[in-house]
Amino acid sequence: MSLALSKQDLKEYLEEVFPQVHSDFVVEELTETSITMRLRVEDRHLRPGGTVSGPSMFGLADVSVYAMVLARKGRQSLAVTTNSSLDFLRKPEGGADLIAECKLLKLGRTLAVGDVLMYSEGSDKPVARASITYSIPPVGSAAAAFG
Amino acid sequence: MSLALSKQDLKEYLEEVFPQVHSDFVVEELTETSITMRLRVEDRHLRPGGTVSGPSMFGLADVSVYAMVLARKGRQSLAVTTNSSLDFLRKPEGGADLIAECKLLKLGRTLAVGDVLMYSEGSDKPVARASITYSIPPVGSAAAAFG
Amino acid sequence: MSLALSKQDLKEYLEEVFPQVHSDFVVEELTETSITMRLRVEDRHLRPGGTVSGPSMFGLADVSVYAMVLARKGRQSLAVTTNSSLDFLRKPEGGADLIAECKLLKLGRTLAVGDVLMYSEGSDKPVARASITYSIPPVGSAAAAFG
Amino acid sequence: MSLALSKQDLKEYLEEVFPQVHSDFVVEELTETSITMRLRVEDRHLRPGGTVSGPSMFGLADVSVYAMVLARKGRQSLAVTTNSSLDFLRKPEGGADLIAECKLLKLGRTLAVGDVLMYSEGSDKPVARASITYSIPPVGSAAAAFG
Repeated sequence: MSLALSKQDLKEYLEEVFPQVHSDFVVEELTETSITMRLRVEDRHLRPGGTVSGPSMFGLADVSVYAMVLARKGRQSLAVTTNSSLDFLRKPEGGADLIAECKLLKLGRTLAVGDVLMYSEGSDKPVARASITYSIPPVGSAAAAFG
Repeated sequence: MSLALSKQDLKEYLEEVFPQVHSDFVVEELTETSITMRLRVEDRHLRPGGTVSGPSMFGLADVSVYAMVLARKGRQSLAVTTNSSLDFLRKPEGGADLIAECKLLKLGRTLAVGDVLMYSEGSDKPVARASITYSIPPVGSAAAAFG
Repeated sequence: MSLALSKQDLKEYLEEVFPQVHSDFVVEELTETSITMRLRVEDRHLRPGGTVSGPSMFGLADVSVYAMVLARKGRQSLAVTTNSSLDFLRKPEGGADLIAECKLLKLGRTLAVGDVLMYSEGSDKPVARASITYSIPPVGSAAAAFG
Repeated sequence: MSLALSKQDLKEYLEEVFPQVHSDFVVEELTETSITMRLRVEDRHLRPGGTVSGPSMFGLADVSVYAMVLARKGRQSLAVTTNSSLDFLRKPEGGADLIAECKLLKLGRTLAVGDVLMYSEGSDKPVARASITYSIPPVGSAAAAFG
């Protein structure tokens, strides 16, 4: 149970594999079983009324679990999301970044599961909860990750 | 059990309330209990490898159920998503639009639930399944929709 | 895409592997991509108020997808549930059996996903919706099915 | 933010409203935002192979969130489950009780959401994760709780 990628390695790898989105997301903290990610909220993440959009929250939760899996398994860009569940609890503030606190609940041979709570920065009441499952194909496998 | 908005009314209303996204989504068909929506897939919807991103699929499912609720309940822009569950089944094709087939499973006083299957246009194998719950505040209520 | 077990084979196998519960469940119909299962509702399935309990509905959905996977993959009793999502839509009638209509959305090498709508017998309004993911270890593998 | 029922009141009320199941479940700890519940595992909760069944785990998660809502809202036996999501992470041990640690993420006017991690007693690795949404009809309302 140790990290395959340091926080710095993880940042560089995310910039490499997600060139179009790496400016949205910042790795804030990383441990062997948890990661904290920030969504830098811009106008393009907002819905009418000035609240952060559902797809933006989904994206933050999904990237958080993906980054956690990468940090443990190494550069496995084939890992794919197979399942997600989100509860939307409160209206996020449009003027604040979103902070995701992700815990790795399971890292098996072929499946990883992470749990995420999201907060508007500065608030201690979660705006959303997510759980995300990733399928991880064997290293060197040509097989598709989609189970 | 009848439509409060026609297909044309619904299109105009979506353009009004979602000015930043209405070019992404097209209402293809509308009945009293189902809606077919198209995501016009552009580069901004893609992930590395040329596949449609998770947030884009989430957004399509979410908008489909929202549009279905609007079509039945009328111009209730306060309705908010409270829960979502998605299964990602197959890799979508980057070069094809995504088609969502949404069925309304329940339209209660305060909760609506829709079920969605999404396909790459031209394929009959679903790329994703979603169920989405909306909370609907009473008409004229000042209360927040977040339950 | 063909059945590994006939409806009769499937019934016999379920009786063999689920001796304590096979009297609860009846295979009503079986095709290559769908199954209809009945829960014979008895007092032990009821909650106060005479409605069918949540665990009983969960069990019906779970067994339906499991039976569908068995019918396609053969006698793979190692398959385990990894994820489930249920929406409870209406109050089931305590005096009626529950009928589950399950569709197989995906049958991959290692993951299978089924979608289930449940009805009180005689009604056409669903009381619940479920999606269930099973992990399927390779045949002959000593590996645990838990991903 | 205070408890409407003490731990002792809650125990007595659960015995009253769930006469057929109260022997299964024990309230271990109760705070204003969390509850710990025990499932006394008996043969009737097991599946072939000696593991705790899915419906039993579902039932434990569901009762935990229900008890948490009762403890805060008071004797509201009309509250009904509207949505659940479960991830099954590891095989529970058949010979050990299951311990559920439930956190209340939201307690709104009409919706409550709880998050649950379940463990085989004596282990610190969760066997399952659940999130459960309850719909809470207004006090004194004759309206059905089903949204």
